[in-house]
Parts: sequence; structure tokens; C-alpha cells
Amino acid sequence: MNIVALAGGVGGAKFADGLAQIIYPRIHTNNHESIREDSWRLMDHSLTVVVNVGDDFDHLGLRICPDLDTVVYTLAGLANPETGWGLAGETWHAMDMLDRCGGETWFRLGDRDLGMHLFRTAALKQGKRLTDIVAEACARLGVTARVLPATDSALPTLVETDQGTLAFQEYFVHRHCEPAVKGIRFEGVESARPTDDVIAAIDRADLVVVCPSNPFVSVDPIVAIGDVRERVAAKPVAAVSPIIGGQAVKGPAAKMLRELGYPSSSVSVARHYADFLDMFVIDTLDADQRLEIERLEIRVLVTDTLMKSVDDRARLAREVLDFAFEGMKAEG
Amino acid sequence: MNIVALAGGVGGAKFADGLAQIIYPRIHTNNHESIREDSWRLMDHSLTVVVNVGDDFDHLGLRICPDLDTVVYTLAGLANPETGWGLAGETWHAMDMLDRCGGETWFRLGDRDLGMHLFRTAALKQGKRLTDIVAEACARLGVTARVLPATDSALPTLVETDQGTLAFQEYFVHRHCEPAVKGIRFEGVESARPTDDVIAAIDRADLVVVCPSNPFVSVDPIVAIGDVRERVAAKPVAAVSPIIGGQAVKGPAAKMLRELGYPSSSVSVARHYADFLDMFVIDTLDADQRLEIERLEIRVLVTDTLMKSVDDRARLAREVLDFAFEGMKAEG
Repeated sequence: MNIVALAGGVGGAKFADGLAQIIYPRIHTNNHESIREDSWRLMDHSLTVVVNVGDDFDHLGLRICPDLDTVVYTLAGLANPETGWGLAGETWHAMDMLDRCGGETWFRLGDRDLGMHLFRTAALKQGKRLTDIVAEACARLGVTARVLPATDSALPTLVETDQGTLAFQEYFVHRHCEPAVKGIRFEGVESARPTDDVIAAIDRADLVVVCPSNPFVSVDPIVAIGDVRERVAAKPVAAVSPIIGGQAVKGPAAKMLRELGYPSSSVSVARHYADFLDMFVIDTLDADQRLEIERLEIRVLVTDTLMKSVDDRARLAREVLDFAFEGMKAEG
Repeated sequence: MNIVALAGGVGGAKFADGLAQIIYPRIHTNNHESIREDSWRLMDHSLTVVVNVGDDFDHLGLRICPDLDTVVYTLAGLANPETGWGLAGETWHAMDMLDRCGGETWFRLGDRDLGMHLFRTAALKQGKRLTDIVAEACARLGVTARVLPATDSALPTLVETDQGTLAFQEYFVHRHCEPAVKGIRFEGVESARPTDDVIAAIDRADLVVVCPSNPFVSVDPIVAIGDVRERVAAKPVAAVSPIIGGQAVKGPAAKMLRELGYPSSSVSVARHYADFLDMFVIDTLDADQRLEIERLEIRVLVTDTLMKSVDDRARLAREVLDFAFEGMKAEG
């Protein structure tokens, strides 16, 4: 079974890690018994995580790819468990010196994290593809899942707000998502191309899973590229709602939904994905939305979707995979 | 008295720090008695350090200015006392991650040091002059001397060797100065311009001091710019030899002298500077070279020139200033 996950930052990375724990169990357990007891672990699977690059930007001379790094750090077991982004045990000496000199420190770059930005920036200057750079870092850091940028093209997300059009990180980090969102654009989306790697992974997929990421600024900029949306729609697609009890676990998804004129609910997310979505996983807090989503001809799994621990990720991933493949078997 | 020092990296920075200790004593002592007892400290002086930029290069997306940073860190009291370059208490987490990803780590950038490179790179991208960027960092870091890049133009030093023409850092750091030097060029020197700041500082100077830096790759790329050499020659000029007992304290000066066909001696350095040099300070180990240098119509001070401690720097600087100004008074 080949599984493709579409992911943004922290929520997407956590769920992708849950999938990786199930699909590449030898990496994640030393307990031989537990391998033999789990049916998922006896089958041959692959996981490809296609990651949003709309948040990427140039800053202080470096190419920063926040979602890619969050996914890679999380899958490598290096992520900061407190924040979900950045690296565990990070230090901030470069930022301290930058601050001392009077430089811009609104986007905080940890010392270890800077090593990744230096690696990527140098490799891009050598003419390497972002796809290959990420693959090299993943191999070095022991990431077993395949991680693919949605595109090697620049595709910056622009947020149209009541305070004007803002580059994504300006909106997200510098202004703390405070401006009211009126619309979202992906600059250059007409000419951006999905990589051959992404196309091949989707076309080969038995299941596409949309991680619990922001629909507007994490998932849309993946499926908006070329014919990715159509290719995804041709596959069985399951999504995990990023909304729990009307709130986003992290980030501005709920606020964006409201500002764009939708209820901040899982139903709104299901409607947003309706053209390609077959299965939707919502939280027990939102069980009352099941019927409304099923009316969209989307099968619904209601479960606990909040991932507090590393084990929660695996538990949720297993439930989602079981739900998706049982449904697919039932349908033939 | 306005003093201009011409400096390269570690040796130049240490001597410039000695000058700063004498010229801006309030910063360097809490002992009120010592201020009153020292005649230098009762007079009104200024110190401008003009620093080589021939070693500067772009690396991993960042603009690196090794000599400027060594001078600034040293004058700010932040330099690593073991190496002379880099910062005290430095950490290497970014390099560790870069190494882990498989990136290039032959040029080691410490975490705190990276903060300076990020500051400079961002400010250059905003269109600021290197001169102003250095001034801002100096003000923030409490540097009292004025530090000026020799030019705001790019002026990369190229080292012609038996292994081909090498960019300076490729020769100096990556290949550990091992290739034999056949010649040295400053790319773009025909069009490079000294800044108005450098010209004004030299023209206003009562004394120009050439620090104990490499004549070929630290001092030459300063005086080679525009008419700097002629403007310096119009002033009383004292130099401190970077050669002690036929050896350079640090770096390839002695090896370069030999490879370029000169004895590795203070005499060779005096000859190299002869067209602008009035006074030369050599080490007691080289006292036997005094007469040969004096034959070049250069006054000579023989003293202990090795700067092991921070106090050594001030002691040597005071001796050099006393020697220079006594000579100038005697000459009228």
C-alpha cells in the first residue's frame, strides 16, 4: 500500500509522524512482540509526505522553508516537543548577537535550525533542486518516509487583509495573524509545476491522506499546483479535520474560516475539500456534525483527534488507516 | 592627535586594541589613578582603524568579513582569547547541523558569529553601505574606536599558486595556506574606491600606524585602493613588523615572503613598505636587522613585539606611540 500524505506545519507533521510510526515500525519500536501483533506492520507500505512550500521565504540571506523543516524535524525525532516546530534543545546565540547588533529578530532562527537553512541555501545556490536537497537532509537525519516539497517552483502565499496584502510570514509570525483575512493568493500558481516526484507519488498512491493542516494556507497551496487537485481527486482521499470544537489546535485556521465567511467548524472544512474528499475524520467534540458531512457523500469517522503525545499520533494514524482501508475494501 | 591604524586580522586587531586602550582609557580602566599618571591619557586623541576587506566572501548565502569581525570583536572585548578570531564562549550548533545534513563546514561559523553575518547580510540586502553597517554594530557592541572597511567596493584577494588561482579563503582556510604562492591580485582594484570616510580619516591623521598584519594580503589590499598609498605616504607612518625571528606570529606572512622570493625577515617587510614608511618597530629577536632598515631612512624601535596578553597590547601600543611622537617632535 502506497500512502501519500499532504501536510503543512505542526499538525500535519505530527500526523505524518503517526503514519510513519505505523508504516515504518522497525524504526519506531524495539519491541519485537508489538511488531508481530499489529496487522499493519506485516504488510508492505510506503509513505510519501507532500509538504506545503507556500510559507517559504528568503530572510537574512537564507532560504527558509518552515513547513518542510517542521515535517523533517518531526519525522527525524528532532522536533521541539513543546512548540511542535523548531528543534529540541535549541539554542539562540545567533539571534542574541543579531539582536545585539540591532538586526531584525521577529522571525526567530535557532542555532541548530540555522544549520539547516545554511545547508539548503548553499545547495540551492549550487543549482540543486529543493526536492533533492530535502531528500539528502532526510537521508542524513534518518527520516524513513519520503518527504517531497509540493513544488520546486517559488509559490509564495500572499494574505489579503484589512491591512493590505501581506507575505505569509509577515502575516503569520510578524503580525501574529492579527489582520483580518479577506482572501489568499498563491503568487505564480499559474506557472508553478508540481515535480515529477509528486505526480508519480500521487499517481501510485492507494490512499491520499490530508493531514490536520490549515485548508487555506497549507493544503490549498499544494492542491492548487497544476493538476494536483484532479490527480488527488482520482484517488481515495481521507482527511483529518484541523478543527476541534470550533477551534484550531494551532494557527489561524478557525479565525480564517470566520473571516472568510464560514462557520469555524469541521463541516466547513469538509465542504472546502468536498470535490476530492471521500472520508473525513472529526473529533468526538464535533460528533454532532457527522450527519451534515455525510450528506456531502463523505464517510465520517468520529474519534479523539487531539495529538498530545507521540503515541497519540500513532493511535490516530492507525485508526485513520483502518477506517480508510476498511471502507475501500467494502467499496470493492 | 588623530591616529589611523591599518589592520588585517588577529595581529592587527590585537595591536588596534592596544591603541584603543591607550587612546580611550576610560573604557579600559576603572583605576582613576592610572588615568592621571599617564600623559597619553590626558590628551585628546582619536583612533580610526581602517580594515582590510580583501578576505571578504560570500558563503552559504551570507556575507563574511573575517578581518572586520576580528577587529570589531577584539575592540568590543568579545574575541576568543585562545584563537584571536571568533567569539569567546562560542557554540557550534549550526555547524553541527550543517555537518549532519552533509553541508560544507570547512569554514567554521560559530553560532554567535552567525548572528553578525546575518545582521550584515540583511543590512547589505537593504542597500546599506558596509561602512554604515560596521559603524552600527560597533556602536551597539560598545566599540569606542572608529572602524572603517578600507572600501565599500568588492575587492576580493586572489592568490596565484602552484595549484592555480585561489580565492583567498579557499587558500587560507580550506587549503591551510599549503599551496605555494606565486603572486597576489586584488580583483577589481582598478575600479574600487576608498570611501570618503577613509580618505577623510587619513587626511586628518597626525600619524598612520600599520599594524603587525600580513603585508601582502592585509595591508597591500588597503593601500592599493585608489590613491590611498599616496595619501598615507604624505603622513608620518609607523609600522609594527609582523615577523619575529623569521616567523609570522600567525598566518602565512613568512611563508609568503619566502615563496615570493624574499628573506622572511623584518627587513623584507620594511623594504615592502619603504615608499611610505618613516618608522618601523621590530622585535628584540631581530635587533641585528636595525642597521639594514635604518639604511632605508627608516627610524627603528627595537622592543618586545609579541602580544600574549591584553596588557601586552597596551604596553606595545604605548611604546609605539611614544616612539612615533617623540620622533615627530624631534623632526619638528
